[in-house]
Amino acid sequence: MRLYNSQLSGNCWKVRQILALRGIDYERVEVDVFDRSNRPELLGGKNPALRVPTLELDDGEHLAESNAILWYFGDGSPYVPDDPLERARVLQWMFFEQYEVEPSIAVARFWITLLGERDRYVAELESKRRAGNRALAALDAHLDGREWLVGDAFTVADISVYAYTHLAEEGDFDLGEYPNVRAWIERVAAVPGHVPLDA
Amino acid sequence: MRLYNSQLSGNCWKVRQILALRGIDYERVEVDVFDRSNRPELLGGKNPALRVPTLELDDGEHLAESNAILWYFGDGSPYVPDDPLERARVLQWMFFEQYEVEPSIAVARFWITLLGERDRYVAELESKRRAGNRALAALDAHLDGREWLVGDAFTVADISVYAYTHLAEEGDFDLGEYPNVRAWIERVAAVPGHVPLDA
Repeated sequence: MRLYNSQLSGNCWKVRQILALRGIDYERVEVDVFDRSNRPELLGGKNPALRVPTLELDDGEHLAESNAILWYFGDGSPYVPDDPLERARVLQWMFFEQYEVEPSIAVARFWITLLGERDRYVAELESKRRAGNRALAALDAHLDGREWLVGDAFTVADISVYAYTHLAEEGDFDLGEYPNVRAWIERVAAVPGHVPLDA
Repeated sequence: MRLYNSQLSGNCWKVRQILALRGIDYERVEVDVFDRSNRPELLGGKNPALRVPTLELDDGEHLAESNAILWYFGDGSPYVPDDPLERARVLQWMFFEQYEVEPSIAVARFWITLLGERDRYVAELESKRRAGNRALAALDAHLDGREWLVGDAFTVADISVYAYTHLAEEGDFDLGEYPNVRAWIERVAAVPGHVPLDA
């Protein structure tokens, strides 16, 4: 199996994390997240969105979108629950992640820490800051009195939302304002089999 | 069952469509998409994102995110396939929809047709136009030679992506540039049990 990967990407980390938890071997093809000019050549016909992660399965089929890949490898394992409503809630948090968390926190982090261009994006960063803080406040309220996002166990929803939330300070967000989020980040990082972003 | 709904929203339409296909009765609570000041009072404790659709189930539990609701009511029906890879691909297209289609096409439509403020948003519309056309081009290429987004049957992926794609012209997108998308829109609208946006 071959993962078109960026070691810098939280979306790619999700895939590396679930594959590590499931003990599945794969090779990595490192893809440039700054110069995207070779994307059509590299990912055309594999992923309509031309993004990483893109996974090539052993039979040559492809699968894309980090949260769809999490579901594919999580379903049937302890990381996706059996109860239909809990399963739907795992998906609810993964859609929340792609709509509320990723476009705000991941993009702010990309501009500020990966590109190092905070000044260039100062106007756009204002709306990212508002959206990201709204998402973090929603998460913090939900995690009040809860150990995990869904039910009473660590699931692929926690993997998904952790991916960029634990990097929020690289996007100038202050996690000190969100104590429930910060405690949950520590719980996720302590799960047996956790892999860090740079592993 | 009670749906916190906006009749104008493509995301809410997805829920109305799957409930109609499954023959499930529900009541609607119409929520204002212009004046959002009552959202905390109306949706607090029900949906962390304070958005519609939010569904209150018969037992008083809540479920949010349109695509998670599609999965909840689609799984176990002909609208979600059985094969694990096809299931993951249905999710792939639904994540593509929330990341690529909705933030571009739905937002452009909201500014231009619902708010009637094309001139006010002229700068932001330029990036929405680029992102929306990129999504439509990816869809059009994928639908070349395919009847449906995943496998050989109509699924909740088609419901999800149709929701805003069929409204693209209300966001100033020219579907005439995307003949495969246009033919697929006609196929979705001809599915037995299809409900229009304003039904």
